[in-house]
Order: sequence, then structure tokens, then C-alpha cells
Amino acid sequence: MIVVDRDAIARAATPALVFATVRATLTAHAHGRTSVPPPLHLEFPDAGGDCHVKAGWVTGADDFAVKIATGFYGNPGRGLPTNHGLVAVVSARTGAVRAVLDDGGLLTAWRTAAAGALVTHALARPDATTLGVFGTGEQARLQVEWLTRLRPLREVLVHGRDPRKAEALCAVLGPVARPASAAETTAADLVVTTTPSTTPVLDATLIRPGTHVTGIGADMPHKNELPAVLFARAETIATDDHAQCLHHGDFGHAVRAGTVPDHADTPIGLLLDGTLTRSESAITVADLTGVGALDAALASAVLDAVLTGGHP
Amino acid sequence: MIVVDRDAIARAATPALVFATVRATLTAHAHGRTSVPPPLHLEFPDAGGDCHVKAGWVTGADDFAVKIATGFYGNPGRGLPTNHGLVAVVSARTGAVRAVLDDGGLLTAWRTAAAGALVTHALARPDATTLGVFGTGEQARLQVEWLTRLRPLREVLVHGRDPRKAEALCAVLGPVARPASAAETTAADLVVTTTPSTTPVLDATLIRPGTHVTGIGADMPHKNELPAVLFARAETIATDDHAQCLHHGDFGHAVRAGTVPDHADTPIGLLLDGTLTRSESAITVADLTGVGALDAALASAVLDAVLTGGHP
Repeated sequence: MIVVDRDAIARAATPALVFATVRATLTAHAHGRTSVPPPLHLEFPDAGGDCHVKAGWVTGADDFAVKIATGFYGNPGRGLPTNHGLVAVVSARTGAVRAVLDDGGLLTAWRTAAAGALVTHALARPDATTLGVFGTGEQARLQVEWLTRLRPLREVLVHGRDPRKAEALCAVLGPVARPASAAETTAADLVVTTTPSTTPVLDATLIRPGTHVTGIGADMPHKNELPAVLFARAETIATDDHAQCLHHGDFGHAVRAGTVPDHADTPIGLLLDGTLTRSESAITVADLTGVGALDAALASAVLDAVLTGGHP
Repeated sequence: MIVVDRDAIARAATPALVFATVRATLTAHAHGRTSVPPPLHLEFPDAGGDCHVKAGWVTGADDFAVKIATGFYGNPGRGLPTNHGLVAVVSARTGAVRAVLDDGGLLTAWRTAAAGALVTHALARPDATTLGVFGTGEQARLQVEWLTRLRPLREVLVHGRDPRKAEALCAVLGPVARPASAAETTAADLVVTTTPSTTPVLDATLIRPGTHVTGIGADMPHKNELPAVLFARAETIATDDHAQCLHHGDFGHAVRAGTVPDHADTPIGLLLDGTLTRSESAITVADLTGVGALDAALASAVLDAVLTGGHP
């Protein structure tokens, strides 16, 4: 059994490879050309941890993948990373395990960043240049970095509950970024939320006409970043997976609150080609919950790149 | 990341270790001291394959495990084994992956054999010495071998659809075994079914009073080895997991056929201590579907044995 370590994965998973794979897989998923069973989930209440197992397959692809991802939220206090895991790449022809990618969550972080950046870029007004980010963690940083690969940003406003963490993130992001109030962050051209919040992080009435909002953080039914009334104001609601977003995304909260019907969403994969016709003043919202088929396609593409030793 | 290969696993997983771990875990499971989420499942119809992912944790244990198991049924025609997979042993304290056991399905086969042998032995009359086996595959062989470790068998009758395979299995099992008709196999003191059948493999009216029957093969809703009327004749019905056996075991077929109520079963883990009081003429039935907590406990115990380099 081949084990690929994080450094080899990081070298092989170039932005071009990740963007191309995520884009193609979101499109395949939107057209029903994927198999994504419901994730498996274990809780470890005493240790403050959980484990999610996702599997996915792009129909007809040579490989599928099974991803094990853990989050133990007391780890940083003990000098350990919060997240661990691996991705097993398995042949869809023979069932043999081709390799285990010991990525420590890197591919999940990058495919989430790429998916967020792709949909934010595709749904944004062409002249949108200010970005408001809620959250100060790894995914906040990555959403900015990966979106910057797709379009120039004039200003990045960062809001976090802990002002020191917001300042630290801005220091990493460079002069384009500065800490801001929630209201100021909400008033940007583009807004991305990357928190584990269980109550909405922004006031929907402060979202300006013409704004695009992408929600990244909700991955459990009790998590909720975007207010239900924001969905009612949206001209377009994009979801990465209709059933998942209903079950444990912000879209589901809005549907259960009665502000939008449960068929109000459009698959993200149908909106990535830049042909969305939007009015100048439209508000658009994207809800991402993470699709197992992305893990499968990306792990397979990265493994192929590692094994051929070259760039894709 | 530590990868443990099949040879090291086979050396560490002694019958004593496997029996002790399986017994303790079935008991813990019967008392509700396990977490076993519903398995995750993928199908590959064109390749004739499937993948099951099971996870489990014995409450409070240091480790949990996630098992990936594939079956691609056209593989033997290409000179490949049908089953592949791995078990990831993960710390329930930190979420870190301790090791990947590259066992090729060995631990699943052995924990299934041990669980079957334990329940067959516990529910059998003390003087039961003839065993009838339906099926001629690996699990048929293992059920005989592991039961022999718990009680002497005077005669083993093997019935398979392909007489040559039944003869080949008997040659492996030695002089105690001989091929037999379905009727003769059904009339043994102990009957174990190990087939992938979708229709009952035996005639319930030919089961003699005092017989114990263990069903091993049903692991999907469409599979069915034991007739519904057999359950109606049983004084004791033992299940390894109530919900799983209702969903995809022979017990579920009997409940849906209306021959027994859905609360007619007793957890196997409550019956392993040999205190079951049974009448001489009682028929007893056990239905096994495989419990993820067994995989977790066994993988953790085997890893510990490998790492300490000694016998448990």
C-alpha cells in the first residue's frame, strides 16, 4: 500500500490542478454524475471531538475515495493540531486500495477554498473588488488567497470575535487586509463566512444590493452563519449539494424558517461557467457544505500527479 | 503514519486475542456501551463491485476504527481477490490516525468467525456434536475452524450448490467433514449458513427440535438465508445488532413476513456467558450482520499487540 505524505501532496496539488478538478467535479455533481452517500459520523463528547467519514465517486472515474476527518477541539491546548485524517484512494475497477494520502486535512482545506473561490467569483458582479470575511481561521485565510487567484481584490475586511486573531490574519494577508466591524465587513461587495457559529454572524439588512455572499462554515445541523431573511432577499441561491444544504447548511435553516421554499436553490455546478445573468442590484447567496465527490476526484488527481512525478 | 501489513496482523491476531476481544465487545454492545453509526455504502454496478465503510467505538476506549471493505465479484476471473480494504485505527483522545491496518479483510473474516463460533457454542445443547454448514467459501471454512476451537465436532456436513466446491472444502477440513444433501445438512445438531443467498437455503420443517442455527451471510436487505417460519419455531432469537438485523438481516425478513414481532430478539452479548436456560427440544436461532464496534476493538487490540511485539 502506497502512503503519500503531506509534503508530496502539497507539491502535487497545484492551484491549477485543484481549481480544474473542483470545477469539473462540481459540474459533474450538478448533472447527477456522482455517487455521494450520506456521511458517517461519530462523536466523542468527553474528548470534545468528532469524526466524519465521507465517500464519493464521479460516475465512471477510475478511482473513488473515502475520507476520514477528525476534529478534536481541545487539541491546540495540548500543542496538537485540531484536525487529523487521511484519504484512501480506491480503484473503482477492482476495489483495491491504490494509496492512502496522509494529508492531515490539506486537501479538504484546499478543495473547500477552491470551491468557495470559484462560486464567489462566478456569482460576483464583475466590478466587485472589496471582500468582507467573517472568521479568522485557516479557511478565512484560504478563501482570500484562493479568490485572489481568480480576481484582484482592492480591500479585504476581516471580522472576528477576537480582535487579536483578526489582526493576526490581516498581518498574514498583507496590506490589502484590515480588521473591521461586523457592519463594515457586511457592507463589502463580496462577503464570505468561515466560522463555526451556531447563530447568524451578520445582519441581513446591512447587505447592500449587488452583493454576493458565500457561506462556508455550516457543516452540521446546529451550525448557522447566514440569517434566514438573507435567503429571502437573494435573487440566486446556489448550493453545492441540495440534500446536504437542506440537512445541515444555512439554506436548510432558511427553508425551515419559511423564508424560502425548499426548491429555491440552483446547483453551484450549473453556475460556474460565468453565464449567470444577474441584475446589478441582485443579492446572490452560495451555501457550501462540502461534497464527497470533490474529495474523491481531487485525491485521485493528486495521486496521479504524485505517481507520474510531474505537473498535471 | 504506521502501516501494518497482513502478515504482522495475522501473527498478532491470535485466536485467544480475537475470541476475548469479540466476546467483550459483543457484551459491551449488548449493554449499549458502543457507538456504531449506520454504515456508508457505495455501488459500482458496471464493475460488479461495492464498498462498505463501517465505524465503531467501544465507549471510553482509547481508539476507534474506520473500516473500508470492498467486494468486486468479477475479480477472481481476473486473478484478483474479491475483497480488499483497510482499517484505520484512530485515537479517540486526539483524533490522530495511529495506524492503517492493511489486512485485506482478514480481521473482518476472523471477527465474523469468532462471533459466529461464540454464539453457536453458547446457544448449542452441551451434547451437540454434528455441524451442518451451508456454503463453501472462506467463511464456511472459518466457522468450522473457529467453532472447533470451542467444542469438539464429531461430524461436519457441508452443502453447497456446486458439489465440487463442497468436496474441496471438505478436503481442507479433513476427515471430520463430508459433502451432504441440503436435507441431511439441515438435520445436524448445529447449522451455520454462510452464503450470499437471496432466498432461504434450508427447509425450516427439517430443522430438528434441539437444533441451534446461526445465520452469517445476510449483510444486505435483499440477502436472505434463513426462512421466516424458522424464527417462529425458535425459543430464542439472538441478534448481534437489533437495528441492523431488522434492516438487513434474516431476522428482519421474518419480522416483515409477520412470523415474529420486531422485539422478539435478544442481544447476542447477553447470551455468551453460558447461563442461557434452554429446553432440550428448543430451537434457537442467531442472526449476525457484523458490528462496527468489533472492527474497532479488534483493530485496536491487534495494533497494540503488534506494537508491543508480544502476545496479548
